[in-house]
Amino acid sequence: MALTGNAIIAQSGGPTAVINNSVCGAVEEWLRSGADLGTIYAGVSGIKGILQGNIIDLAQQDQKKIAALRYTPGAGIFSCRYKVTDDDQLRIVDIFRKLNIRYFFYNGGNDSMDTAHKTYLAAKECGWDMRIIGIPKTIDNDLPFTDHCPGYGSAAKYIAVTVRETGIDLESVSTKNKVTILEAMGRDAGWLTAAGALARRYDDEAPHLIYLPEVPFSKSKFIGDVEKVYKQLGYCYVIVSEGIVNEEGEYCFAGGTIDDFGHAQLSGVGESLKSLVEQELGVKARCNTMGTTQRSAMHFASAVDANEAYLVGTNAVKYALADKSGVMVTLERILDNPYSFGLGEVELAKVANIAKKLPLEWINDDHNYVTQEFIKYARPLIEGQLSLPFKNGLPDYVRLDLSKGKVILD
Amino acid sequence: MALTGNAIIAQSGGPTAVINNSVCGAVEEWLRSGADLGTIYAGVSGIKGILQGNIIDLAQQDQKKIAALRYTPGAGIFSCRYKVTDDDQLRIVDIFRKLNIRYFFYNGGNDSMDTAHKTYLAAKECGWDMRIIGIPKTIDNDLPFTDHCPGYGSAAKYIAVTVRETGIDLESVSTKNKVTILEAMGRDAGWLTAAGALARRYDDEAPHLIYLPEVPFSKSKFIGDVEKVYKQLGYCYVIVSEGIVNEEGEYCFAGGTIDDFGHAQLSGVGESLKSLVEQELGVKARCNTMGTTQRSAMHFASAVDANEAYLVGTNAVKYALADKSGVMVTLERILDNPYSFGLGEVELAKVANIAKKLPLEWINDDHNYVTQEFIKYARPLIEGQLSLPFKNGLPDYVRLDLSKGKVILD
Repeated sequence: MALTGNAIIAQSGGPTAVINNSVCGAVEEWLRSGADLGTIYAGVSGIKGILQGNIIDLAQQDQKKIAALRYTPGAGIFSCRYKVTDDDQLRIVDIFRKLNIRYFFYNGGNDSMDTAHKTYLAAKECGWDMRIIGIPKTIDNDLPFTDHCPGYGSAAKYIAVTVRETGIDLESVSTKNKVTILEAMGRDAGWLTAAGALARRYDDEAPHLIYLPEVPFSKSKFIGDVEKVYKQLGYCYVIVSEGIVNEEGEYCFAGGTIDDFGHAQLSGVGESLKSLVEQELGVKARCNTMGTTQRSAMHFASAVDANEAYLVGTNAVKYALADKSGVMVTLERILDNPYSFGLGEVELAKVANIAKKLPLEWINDDHNYVTQEFIKYARPLIEGQLSLPFKNGLPDYVRLDLSKGKVILD
Repeated sequence: MALTGNAIIAQSGGPTAVINNSVCGAVEEWLRSGADLGTIYAGVSGIKGILQGNIIDLAQQDQKKIAALRYTPGAGIFSCRYKVTDDDQLRIVDIFRKLNIRYFFYNGGNDSMDTAHKTYLAAKECGWDMRIIGIPKTIDNDLPFTDHCPGYGSAAKYIAVTVRETGIDLESVSTKNKVTILEAMGRDAGWLTAAGALARRYDDEAPHLIYLPEVPFSKSKFIGDVEKVYKQLGYCYVIVSEGIVNEEGEYCFAGGTIDDFGHAQLSGVGESLKSLVEQELGVKARCNTMGTTQRSAMHFASAVDANEAYLVGTNAVKYALADKSGVMVTLERILDNPYSFGLGEVELAKVANIAKKLPLEWINDDHNYVTQEFIKYARPLIEGQLSLPFKNGLPDYVRLDLSKGKVILD
């Protein structure tokens, strides 16, 4: 028998193009299967919003707008980056008790799964019986125990098309700018950077070189690699992760600032390598920094990814109503071709704070490209395009009214 | 009576997403209407390729690939940035005479129209009767005497969707990075930068501030503007042109290098403003540099733009066969809504080397946004999406075989 009470969902960390599919899936599934038990709230701006009592009743939203979240990027119910303290945890359980919240769905990446796990332990300690389920999302694709993460396929698809297009551009213009460097996100794992390899159909097509955080980066080796390609083709396309490290395991280009979770904020890797190429090889280079486009490009999202993001949302609710708790929904691959997958689960305790890296055997011996094994893995995840509603030539994304149905907490 | 002889087409300068539509249009129109007169060659890598005798017979290409140029970015027959000398001009006419080339179509921007005009004068001087037609293209939209330029609509559409998506991302995440700066191309004119305004539907939606090269940029005014928006909304989205100038008309952030045409190479504007915001306001900022994605994003091209790019190509051939010469094809707007246009012409002599700026009356009094007049002008140009052939989750762009049908020049 499922517990009687309300549910709450919140989003955390950097959005993905398809993260709102998960919220939509969870809300629609709750309204189908859990509405007799209670309503479903949103914590506006993640766990921080819950702590601040910024909670709204999603059943009061225009449900057409909830449905439209399936094609809207950003974090539809807003997100945060905030590390909860022990005191915070007790306060969260207190708020859950006050609002009779018996179900908590947290949609996020590694740090968020840690938060969900701590909340799970705090609720147990306080004797508040509830179900807590993690809904995975991250363009970084670095959550462990899941074949891949919702959000990755869309970011990978967007990076791949960008590499293909800017690669064709590079190849076709005889100018001085003959080295292009694309900087991709991914602090600790090279999944996103590697995705650029999906662009390449012919031996001489972009990208030519890929540098990942999993293996040490050497500036002199890098210059030698670029020189070799440039001498052969007359141009060279490089993709580099913002998180590349040297032999000592230190970030090559840390910006000096630190976020709330103690992670170094990285930037400037692409620009630094551009200068290096110009100095060492005397060849003009250009740097494209992908920035937040990678995690928001819904206009070129993967249909496979959007569908999976929706299903991890619906399944989180199904798991919770089946009395599961303290787990994250996972995606399990059944077949590469034709691609098929199933849904599974893993304990939050196992997931929290662990970053899954690209397997070393998927990186070539020269440490400057990925192998066909990676391509086999990633290709199915970028399949299919979404059909978006357009208005005035642009996708007509929605905005929820996040002041509607606000809960009054005394 | 049209001259009997061959035709040649070449591309110049930075590509646009739809530039190959013009080559496709010209080649298809030639094979329909001019094939009795002779064949149609390509100068591979623009005027530089012609000078170097890198010329191929396009009639020998797989015509399915020529048709597929309609959805392929980059410069399909390669492009160059090269300023021709007087000696070069004589040599070009000499090559035209040797190959009995009576029709020259040059597909480019301001500098290319200057080249086409000089070739026109040189042919006249040498007594070589021929027809020379300029086919406009530039994402910068700065060619005069045409309502707009093929290539602009697609770049504008891509910039607008990027601003809408990264703007929604910025708004929805409660982190320290609360100022986003997007750097757009456009050395002398603000058309592309202004296009970001198409993203905005609500007063508080991104972009909030737009800085154009047409009006002087002041760092202190900029900081004041950002601070005002940030205090009001808690975040701020800025679009800035790489070509902003100070009160003295000097580029604010020139990189120090100069291209073949003597233009300063600009870069680092966005990054410089990001640092300025962080120093002066103590707020974390993020910079997205669009780079060559703006001119190659065929995956999100405007259908209106692609169609027009094709038609200026077909019309160039029609004009030449009707004995017109020394002109560039233009686009003339008939109506904004429903949008309709016609084709016209202007003498190359008038176009060469002139950059059309954004009208000052389309910039607000505060010099930090555009008016509704600009929106009315630009909106029709980003309408419609193309249907691209996909393979393995990505658009299956083509590559011509540029070694096929190579002409032997002794």
